[in-house]
Amino acid sequence: MSVSIRRLTTSDPEFQAKLDRLLVFDDSTDESVERAVAEIIADVRQRGDDAVLDCTRRFDQLAAASMPALELPKAELAQAFAALDAERRQALEIAAARIRSYHEHQKADSWEYQDAEGMRLGQKVTPLDRVGLYVPGGKASYPSSVLMNAIPAKVAGVGELIMVVPTPRGEKNQLVLAAAHLAGVDRVFTIGGAQAVAALAYGTETIPQVDKIVGPGNAYVACAKRRVFGVVGIDMVAGPSEVLVIADGTTNPDWVAMDLFAQAEHDEMAQSILLCPDADFIDRVVQSINRLLPAMSRRETIAVSLSSRGALIQVADLDEACAVANRIAPEHLELSVQEARQLVEKIRHAGAIFIGPHTSESIGDYCAGPDHVLPTSRSARFSSPLGVYDFQKRSSLIEVPAAAAAKLGPVASVLARGEGLTAHARAAELRYED
Amino acid sequence: MSVSIRRLTTSDPEFQAKLDRLLVFDDSTDESVERAVAEIIADVRQRGDDAVLDCTRRFDQLAAASMPALELPKAELAQAFAALDAERRQALEIAAARIRSYHEHQKADSWEYQDAEGMRLGQKVTPLDRVGLYVPGGKASYPSSVLMNAIPAKVAGVGELIMVVPTPRGEKNQLVLAAAHLAGVDRVFTIGGAQAVAALAYGTETIPQVDKIVGPGNAYVACAKRRVFGVVGIDMVAGPSEVLVIADGTTNPDWVAMDLFAQAEHDEMAQSILLCPDADFIDRVVQSINRLLPAMSRRETIAVSLSSRGALIQVADLDEACAVANRIAPEHLELSVQEARQLVEKIRHAGAIFIGPHTSESIGDYCAGPDHVLPTSRSARFSSPLGVYDFQKRSSLIEVPAAAAAKLGPVASVLARGEGLTAHARAAELRYED
Repeated sequence: MSVSIRRLTTSDPEFQAKLDRLLVFDDSTDESVERAVAEIIADVRQRGDDAVLDCTRRFDQLAAASMPALELPKAELAQAFAALDAERRQALEIAAARIRSYHEHQKADSWEYQDAEGMRLGQKVTPLDRVGLYVPGGKASYPSSVLMNAIPAKVAGVGELIMVVPTPRGEKNQLVLAAAHLAGVDRVFTIGGAQAVAALAYGTETIPQVDKIVGPGNAYVACAKRRVFGVVGIDMVAGPSEVLVIADGTTNPDWVAMDLFAQAEHDEMAQSILLCPDADFIDRVVQSINRLLPAMSRRETIAVSLSSRGALIQVADLDEACAVANRIAPEHLELSVQEARQLVEKIRHAGAIFIGPHTSESIGDYCAGPDHVLPTSRSARFSSPLGVYDFQKRSSLIEVPAAAAAKLGPVASVLARGEGLTAHARAAELRYED
Repeated sequence: MSVSIRRLTTSDPEFQAKLDRLLVFDDSTDESVERAVAEIIADVRQRGDDAVLDCTRRFDQLAAASMPALELPKAELAQAFAALDAERRQALEIAAARIRSYHEHQKADSWEYQDAEGMRLGQKVTPLDRVGLYVPGGKASYPSSVLMNAIPAKVAGVGELIMVVPTPRGEKNQLVLAAAHLAGVDRVFTIGGAQAVAALAYGTETIPQVDKIVGPGNAYVACAKRRVFGVVGIDMVAGPSEVLVIADGTTNPDWVAMDLFAQAEHDEMAQSILLCPDADFIDRVVQSINRLLPAMSRRETIAVSLSSRGALIQVADLDEACAVANRIAPEHLELSVQEARQLVEKIRHAGAIFIGPHTSESIGDYCAGPDHVLPTSRSARFSSPLGVYDFQKRSSLIEVPAAAAAKLGPVASVLARGEGLTAHARAAELRYED
């Protein structure tokens, strides 16, 4: 079994155009999905629990007498955790502790200062009251994702964390339930799809309204999240996963090949790209790919992903590799080079930077500590990994004593009158005229 | 001239339902707006400058020979600033300096630590490369908003800040241009509407692609921002402005009345609400409203806003006032009470908290320092004032030395195999098997 993976070089005058075509990912939503989701949301807003029950019957082939019957008792989560074999339980515990410890570093505190005029200014930082966590059913249902979404919320101090997970025909993923127990999820409903998103966004008789919804889902879930944005907060809508490896040619080529596989095995749309100045090394990576692929359990998916969306790109030097990386703004960036720290300085856009040859992306995916929910599809240009900051929000604090109101009120008055807002001006003036 | 403003009391068993009805604001977009915007975006993506020029001719009655002709030279901004009278120039300068100084406190730094296993973990914080700032034309065009949007971006270190502002029939707002000069805006194009949003999101021959678009706009602009979200970042889509005043009855009622006016004068959908335990004080505020209203330049707008969306609500005590405030999650919250600091502790959801009777919202709108771009329509439950953090983003940093890869690789391996991701497991294992 061999795979044909495209090879490019930056010295090709057409390189930029070829790269742009490679990176294109069309995430436009099907019109029929839009219509179906709009109808489901309207139905849930109007009929509440009954609408969610009907959808669950229809889409998940799961009939329940009432919404409360679709809530899992906490004892069932605890039981799933207790039933894990020791090795797996310990691995989950180590991962959870490391994720928690890392995210503690992200917690923001309220701050305030007094300026020269005697004003006290700052921001009060508070956790969100209630958050909804969407967990997909079926093959994309990962216990590690439960930890990576739930733990930052809990570290932020979110009051109540409500998980929804579809269980088609009643089939539950015990590992997901065990992870929910470990992460401290407060309530779990076995519902999914646009109906679960709508129920969390607007509330029903049984499901309380949340303030924000996070977590990945299929096209219906993504479309529903976009539509309820504003009523509640949402996290980024994720595209296919991507890795970009920058190698200087000193790493074991098997390691690089396996890192490209690890990304490609997610799904056929996943993207694995290598940048390297050393053509011989690229040849050796190709040999590793062809030698290692047959043993992979997901070799078909890997082969399709690598041949349709992968690339091995020869660059002039590592500086140029960094420039291309900034252009790609990858979700995951591996610096598989000797002088990795020097390259970190040159990277402006990446979801996560894996520094040095021993730092496999996969150790970061599970247990290094940083979050594995990362900006995809070039959105690292303007957004950040999921973090505690996504579950905290800020209120400005402004306290103006009488003397400062007298000194700076006239400034507000002049500017307000310049904008034709007389009541704004008068409100400032009354504070120093009286 | 008198205004009828509804009076409610929390002791009414129907209070909660009445409050919910009062707060309802339907921001659903008209289907015809959606279609028009989708067409404009598709046209700009396909035809670039030519599409923007056509739209500008059609919607702004402004004909230009080429896109470069719609860029304002920087000298024109400097000239607008130099032409200000001394009082206004000084007021703008004081406001800009105070806004800059406050926002300096929000700047996040990169951080990193080494854990017990020798892993180095952290986040690298970088500014966005390029940001688009939408400034509305016509009556909603405020120089203060230019400062409040542009200065946090500049403090964050954004490389290039590109402003777009429609100038129907070529009419330019000199105050807005002066504020753009003062705030350090890098380039200004006199374009607006969905075509300006599309041009910034996708880039054209003349207009460079940005990474994020901020700033308020009409229904077409809001719809376009939602549609390009993901291709670029966007700020919150703002609803009507709101103020909630909590008064203990010791403030001059004229001050409270004027603060309600200041919000109401923005537009007929703006919302002004008073919470007070003292019915007599509420009566006196009503008297102040009726006495002061006739002198207001925007009295018609104020009267419509107060009678359609305003309310004076009697509460049992200040504790209950805080509970109602948390339910409303107002954009602006004034604590016009003697023991204001005690109340701050009880507030969980508000865009900005104005502490004590001398702190008029209007001084915060212009020159206290904190940003006046704040979450509306109850979104303070999950979002924050515009800030430097909106123009910075984070990349996770993960460096795993060989010993840590050997110690924690097996954890990643166990978890990856539990999820059926063999290549993930092998990528971790190769680092300690070799």
